[in-house]
Amino acid sequence: MIIGLLGFGTIGAGVYEIIKERGAAEVRYVLDIREIGIPELTHNMEDILADSEVDTVVEVMGGLHPAYEFVTAAMKAGKSVVTANKYLVATFYDELIALAKEMGVAFRCTAAVGGGIGWLTALEKAKRAERITALEGIMNGTTNYILSNMKEKGLSFETALSEAQALGYAEADPSADIDGLDIMHKVMLSANVAYDVSVKKEELFVAGIRTITDEDVKAFGEKGLTCKILGSAFENDGAVAAFVQPTLLPADSMTASVPANFNLISYEAEHSGKMSFFGQGAGRYPTAANAVQDCLDLAAGKKEFYTNESKQIALSNDKVSYRYYIRTTAKSAKALCKEPFGPGYLTEKMSVAEMQAAMVKIKAEDEKVFIAALAE
Amino acid sequence: MIIGLLGFGTIGAGVYEIIKERGAAEVRYVLDIREIGIPELTHNMEDILADSEVDTVVEVMGGLHPAYEFVTAAMKAGKSVVTANKYLVATFYDELIALAKEMGVAFRCTAAVGGGIGWLTALEKAKRAERITALEGIMNGTTNYILSNMKEKGLSFETALSEAQALGYAEADPSADIDGLDIMHKVMLSANVAYDVSVKKEELFVAGIRTITDEDVKAFGEKGLTCKILGSAFENDGAVAAFVQPTLLPADSMTASVPANFNLISYEAEHSGKMSFFGQGAGRYPTAANAVQDCLDLAAGKKEFYTNESKQIALSNDKVSYRYYIRTTAKSAKALCKEPFGPGYLTEKMSVAEMQAAMVKIKAEDEKVFIAALAE
Repeated sequence: MIIGLLGFGTIGAGVYEIIKERGAAEVRYVLDIREIGIPELTHNMEDILADSEVDTVVEVMGGLHPAYEFVTAAMKAGKSVVTANKYLVATFYDELIALAKEMGVAFRCTAAVGGGIGWLTALEKAKRAERITALEGIMNGTTNYILSNMKEKGLSFETALSEAQALGYAEADPSADIDGLDIMHKVMLSANVAYDVSVKKEELFVAGIRTITDEDVKAFGEKGLTCKILGSAFENDGAVAAFVQPTLLPADSMTASVPANFNLISYEAEHSGKMSFFGQGAGRYPTAANAVQDCLDLAAGKKEFYTNESKQIALSNDKVSYRYYIRTTAKSAKALCKEPFGPGYLTEKMSVAEMQAAMVKIKAEDEKVFIAALAE
Repeated sequence: MIIGLLGFGTIGAGVYEIIKERGAAEVRYVLDIREIGIPELTHNMEDILADSEVDTVVEVMGGLHPAYEFVTAAMKAGKSVVTANKYLVATFYDELIALAKEMGVAFRCTAAVGGGIGWLTALEKAKRAERITALEGIMNGTTNYILSNMKEKGLSFETALSEAQALGYAEADPSADIDGLDIMHKVMLSANVAYDVSVKKEELFVAGIRTITDEDVKAFGEKGLTCKILGSAFENDGAVAAFVQPTLLPADSMTASVPANFNLISYEAEHSGKMSFFGQGAGRYPTAANAVQDCLDLAAGKKEFYTNESKQIALSNDKVSYRYYIRTTAKSAKALCKEPFGPGYLTEKMSVAEMQAAMVKIKAEDEKVFIAALAE
C-alpha cells in the first residue's frame, strides 16, 4: 500500500508515526501548506493524483474545502480514500459513496465517529449477523469533559469550558462541540450505516449544552440524575428517528459514569442485545490508530463502504417520546411546563418532533432556554 | 460453507436459528445424543467427519470430553473449527493451535470469552496497529449478578446465589463461576492472544467470591467501594502477570456500575489508550451470534488463529502489587493485617505472587477467608 497523506496536523502526524512504526505501508507524500521538515512533504495535490502507484489517500486535514475537492479527485483518479472527517462525509454522503462505488474504490471513515473506538466497523460487523434497532451514546469528548467537570466540581459552564480550552480539549470557537453539531454528524453517519439509509442533516433535532447552568446541574444531582449530551438514532419498521440532546440519566448508570473526555457508544442488536464501546473519543493517537486500521482493512482486501444501501428517507422523530426538563422564560413554553423541577419544569411525555417544533418558537423568545430529555 | 454443529443445547440451538435466519451457511448435521426433532440430527460424529463437503465444525457442546476428541478429529479431517468452549481451548491451547496450523485449517473461539462481546477479535484487530499492555474486566455474568444483588439488595451470598440459580444464571453446581475458574480460562485465552504467549493454568492466582459476606459488602459500600471479581493480565517487557481476584473499585467508576449479568472487558493499547467492551456475557443469542460471526469470518477467508505466536512462559505475578482487604481467622495471616477495615483488615502493598503464596497457608487454616484487591 502506497499512501498520500492529506494533512500533517494532530491526527496526520499520528497516522504518519504509527504507519512508520509498524512498517504497515509506505507514506509517499504528505500534503500540507506549511513547511514541515519531512522528506515526503508536498504542497501540491497534483503530485499525489499523478502518481499511479499511490493507491490510497488518507484525508485528515478536516473541514469541507478543499477536503471535498481532494477526496473526490482522488477517487476519480482510482484511489481508495480513508478519512477521519465526519463533517465531510456527513455533508456529501450520497455523492461520496456513489462515487466510490462508481470508481470501484474503497471508502472508509472509521475514525470519524468515536475517535479511537472502531464504532462504524463494529456496526458493519454486527449487521452481518443481526439487525440493529437502536444506537445511542456519548459521542463527543469535549462536552462530556465540560459536563463531568460541572458535576464534579460545581463549576459554571463558562469556567468548565475555559478549562477544556486550556487543556486543548475544546477549540477556540467551541460552537461545533457545545451546540451539538459534531455529534449531529456522528449520529448521521451512524444511522446511515446501521439502518442502510441516508438521513437529511436539517431534519435532525439538535439541542446543545451552551445554556446549561450550574444550578441546573446541581438540581439534577439532588434528584440522583446526571446530565450527558447523547446522540441517538432508533429504527422501527423502516421509520428512523435521529437526534442530539442533553439527557438526564440515573447517576449510577454506566453512561452517567463516563469520565473526562471519553466516549461510550452503544447499539441494540436483535440477538446480542446491548453492546457498548468505550474509549478515547478524540486525540492524536486514538483517532490516528483507527485511520491506520482502515488502511490495514484496505490492505487486507476490504473494498466496500460499511453499507451497500443508502435509501434517502425522511426522519420520524414523532415516533420517540420523552418527558423533558425545560428551563426558560419564554411565554410560548408555558403550556409545556407541567411540574416544577429544580430551576425549571418537567413536561408531560412529548415526542422529539414536538419538542423540535416547540424549540423554534421558544428560542426566538429566550435564547438562554435549556432542555434535557429525561431517560426512561 | 457447510457446517457440522456439535451440540444442540442453549448455544447450539441459537447458532442453528441465526444461521437459518440469515441464510449464511448450510447446517448439514447437528450432533446430539438426544432425540431432537430436526432433520439434520445425527448421533454419530463419523457422519460429519466422513462428509468431505462439511468444511466447518462448530463445537458448542461444552466440557472437555468428547469435545476434545471431536474437535481434533475434525481438524485432522481437514475441517475448520469454531468453538465457544473456553475450558477446552484453554486446556489444550498449544496442541489445538499447533494442530490447526499443521492441518491448514482455521480455528476460532470468539464466543469463548465475553459471550456476545467480540473480545478476542477486538484484541486481534487492535494488535495489527498497536501493542496491548493490559487487559482487565468483568468476564463472568453469574458472579457479577451475585455481587450486584448483594450490594443493591443487601442479600447474603447464599440468597444471591439461589436467586441467580432460580433465574438460570448460575448452574446447580456453581463452583466454576464462584471459584473463579471460568474467568481463569478466559484470562488465559485473552493473555495468550494479547501477548503472543501460552500461560500455564496452574500458575494463575485465582481467588473467588464463595466466601464473601453481606458484612463485607456493606463495609465496602460505606467506604465508597464496590466489589467486582475481575480477570486481569498485564504485560511489561516480556513479563506477563495473570490472575483472577475480587477487586474493590470506586463506586462511581464505570466498572463498578456494570449491572446484572453483563460483562465489561477492557484493554490498554499503546496508541488508543483504554478501550472497553460491554455486553451480555452469556446467554443463548449473544454467544451464538459470536459463533456465527466466527463462521462469517471463515467464509470471508479468515484462516488464522488470533495470533501466530504462543511462546510458553512462566508468569510474573511478582511484578504487580496491591493493598488487599483480608478477612480471616487464620493465625498465619496475622502479620499481613496492618489496618482495620470493616470486618477485616487491609494489608500493606504486596505482590500478587506474595498473596498467592500466603493464601495457600491461610486457606489450610481458614477455608472461609475472603480477600479482595484494592484498586489503585
